[in-house]
Amino acid sequence: MEHGNPEADILDHREVYSGRIVDLHVDTIRQASGTETIREVVRHPGGVTAVPVLADGRILLIRQFRYPLGKFIFELPAGKLDSGQSPQDTVLRELEEEIGRAAGSLTHECTFYTSPGFCDESIHLFVARDLAPTGQRLEEGEHITVEPRTLAECLEMMETGEIEDAKTILGILWYRMKYAAPGDSNSG
Amino acid sequence: MEHGNPEADILDHREVYSGRIVDLHVDTIRQASGTETIREVVRHPGGVTAVPVLADGRILLIRQFRYPLGKFIFELPAGKLDSGQSPQDTVLRELEEEIGRAAGSLTHECTFYTSPGFCDESIHLFVARDLAPTGQRLEEGEHITVEPRTLAECLEMMETGEIEDAKTILGILWYRMKYAAPGDSNSG
Repeated sequence: MEHGNPEADILDHREVYSGRIVDLHVDTIRQASGTETIREVVRHPGGVTAVPVLADGRILLIRQFRYPLGKFIFELPAGKLDSGQSPQDTVLRELEEEIGRAAGSLTHECTFYTSPGFCDESIHLFVARDLAPTGQRLEEGEHITVEPRTLAECLEMMETGEIEDAKTILGILWYRMKYAAPGDSNSG
Repeated sequence: MEHGNPEADILDHREVYSGRIVDLHVDTIRQASGTETIREVVRHPGGVTAVPVLADGRILLIRQFRYPLGKFIFELPAGKLDSGQSPQDTVLRELEEEIGRAAGSLTHECTFYTSPGFCDESIHLFVARDLAPTGQRLEEGEHITVEPRTLAECLEMMETGEIEDAKTILGILWYRMKYAAPGDSNSG
């Protein structure tokens, strides 16, 4: 049923942009059918995100300004992978920086592609527990507030569109599936 | 607690690339702190996706080659918005093209940003039911097989990493939360 790579015949490879976060490559390929077409590919180093859960069950969301959207949105803490750093080390660092908590327990849940049609970015999802306060350490220019919410509040915010970030919706729903008691998980 | 746009002071705006699917803009901004920095923004028209549910409860996944990843992956049917077309019309068209089904019932569930750190892409999620066979109509160069799976099978594939696309994991977990009977929803 399945064949090999049907888009292996690269006629031209153009590195359009090499930047701080992303690179853009534009390839001309010949498809298995013989037709030539263009493939635009955004290269991204990948990243991590975590559902940080307090002892009382509340989840620590953050709210930050996102330039591409021109607005503040709710998200799970997250960050991009630096070369040579493990996903575990990266997520521990981001939790300290963004929500000011050292995580005593960390479980890797899954890894997913954010937009595989044009981008190779993948994100490792963790659940973080045993959170000890350390103090937020924001980078220059970061505007982040920490927003504790119960699971029921998070689900309500997803229904109303107040939470509208994919990794955040995915992470909360994953956490609900794997760890929430049935009584916690009513969405209304 | 919340202030206005802290990144409104654009010193330079460069349109690096304008393509078939994405545009790339690179802006130099002055942050509220006074520091200058770069913002790389991928502009995308946005898209739609759907969880297509058969009368017997199985979900119709697709399997297709994704050039940025260099491999075949499992996904929900999806497509990008063409200008002037509604999300509803777009998802109905994509369901006919990719899985060969006309949807008699369509509910909009939520809309999410795929990677708001560098990209403005948003995806409208639907659940599609009352699916009548019409015949797949693939575009030139598309390699898509239709893969029916039970919800339990989908959840297992997410746990093992066989499903690794964010919109697909999000869509299946959303469907499970809102529509699955408790007995359907054990993940193992």
